[in-house]
Amino acid sequence: MINDVYITPLKIIDTPGGNVMHAMKENDKGFYNFGEAYFSEIEEGAIKAWKRHRDMTLNIIVPFGKIRFILFDDRSKFDKQFQEIILSKNNYSRITIPPMIWVGFQGLFSERSLLLNIANIMHNPKEVDKKNIEEIKFNWKEINI
Amino acid sequence: MINDVYITPLKIIDTPGGNVMHAMKENDKGFYNFGEAYFSEIEEGAIKAWKRHRDMTLNIIVPFGKIRFILFDDRSKFDKQFQEIILSKNNYSRITIPPMIWVGFQGLFSERSLLLNIANIMHNPKEVDKKNIEEIKFNWKEINI
Repeated sequence: MINDVYITPLKIIDTPGGNVMHAMKENDKGFYNFGEAYFSEIEEGAIKAWKRHRDMTLNIIVPFGKIRFILFDDRSKFDKQFQEIILSKNNYSRITIPPMIWVGFQGLFSERSLLLNIANIMHNPKEVDKKNIEEIKFNWKEINI
Repeated sequence: MINDVYITPLKIIDTPGGNVMHAMKENDKGFYNFGEAYFSEIEEGAIKAWKRHRDMTLNIIVPFGKIRFILFDDRSKFDKQFQEIILSKNNYSRITIPPMIWVGFQGLFSERSLLLNIANIMHNPKEVDKKNIEEIKFNWKEINI
């Protein structure tokens, strides 16, 4: 487990006509401030990698489909590590990702999957670092599920 | 149009691997405070009606599927009115609904549709009023699309 990354199981409430699914409350662990909420879709097999936010804390929920997240922590030169988390309605949880962690994700569902990010600051390209997928070595073909 | 109900068109940003879709920013019209965000699913043809929040302002986005919202304003005895809004990715917008408006919604998509509500207060059953569907007369069978 990467330091300061939290995985919080969320409730799905069975309701006639369709479930109610928790995302985040203002008194939840991992909530610091509301800056912006946005969705990101990911097609089956597609990979979006790598991105690192220098200021933003991410709170990610997957309400539709199945997404594999790979986090890479190189904050310490001596203890670099990867963490894999797969979210879907079968593992309905929120991932809190602090600043300075590299994030990549891959769609594992036959349609487009959907994530919601509830971020503590608004989108600002100046606080985002990007790397091409091959700049951080990871075997995306091997899926541990 | 019902007073104080805002419909705000939102951006869908075409991105390789899957779109990025705006939901809400802290400086957006209709954002007062972050209390809670939650999802609600609605099956095809299913109707969830009627509910009124006495304190909560709702900010509703439909990132998947198609949902018909019927709002009913009976705050004034002399000027009661309905408003119909259909949200989907083809009409990708946010509805801001102030307190004291009755809300019902219906799934119009062949799978389950999904809405996100970004609310200014946390869920509290004490501030919610409910009515059975037949207590507010509305012809749900007639769809104006």
